[in-house]
Amino acid sequence: MEHFMKAALKAARESLAEGGVPVGAVLVHRGVILGSGHNQRVQLGSAILHGALDALENAGRQPPEIYRESTLYTTLTPCAMCSGAILLYRIPRVVIGETRSMRGEEALLRERGVEVEVLQDPECIALMEGFIADSPALWHEDIGD
Amino acid sequence: MEHFMKAALKAARESLAEGGVPVGAVLVHRGVILGSGHNQRVQLGSAILHGALDALENAGRQPPEIYRESTLYTTLTPCAMCSGAILLYRIPRVVIGETRSMRGEEALLRERGVEVEVLQDPECIALMEGFIADSPALWHEDIGD
Repeated sequence: MEHFMKAALKAARESLAEGGVPVGAVLVHRGVILGSGHNQRVQLGSAILHGALDALENAGRQPPEIYRESTLYTTLTPCAMCSGAILLYRIPRVVIGETRSMRGEEALLRERGVEVEVLQDPECIALMEGFIADSPALWHEDIGD
Repeated sequence: MEHFMKAALKAARESLAEGGVPVGAVLVHRGVILGSGHNQRVQLGSAILHGALDALENAGRQPPEIYRESTLYTTLTPCAMCSGAILLYRIPRVVIGETRSMRGEEALLRERGVEVEVLQDPECIALMEGFIADSPALWHEDIGD
């Protein structure tokens, strides 16, 4: 597995160990991780800190041109909110661990010109499958379902 | 002006008084404000707390069915990220103070079935016009532009 997806998966697993939703992400600029994060619904009682948004928040305030040279790695396909953040900041490339556990917004991202790469990584899939089987109510709350 | 847009505008003005980006929002469920918020880029150094996301965060963790009976009031048209949050949680109705200061995602929201009402309120417009004229760099950072 690519180094940066490994970092996102590590963050996702940390979240699971904390009793949280196991989705992790990292924002990478020219080979350097600017911010790493994971879902914070349980840990911070957050309604908006999905993995990708937590990574963006942890990257701090960045000038617009930095985002435009960055790649977001996320263990799970981005929801509408996280995809919207990618579009807001015109992040040109997204690498997704897996799209099987949730219907994401890959089509919208591609339609708006984002390069989307999907790995369908077995470790990312197994992590979400186990979590959804164990915590269906928490999962459905997290995706407003 | 409607009571709830007045509350959103009050939050936007508080942000301006704090040196921040003057966009405010409230999430309303059956006539009760669940959460009120404003942009927190300056105040908290946040890259993701736009007005609508701050209001959702301040509303706390809510069951999916609450969002589906709620209305979001926002002084400025929601960007892609904030629109994505509306879609994630299937908030069925959005009332927007104005759409003149920014190109928002009203078309995407309507396409996905959200009821969008635009007020083009002179006070909301004047607040943003003054801010953009005074702080163009901060504004462009906030919208990744």
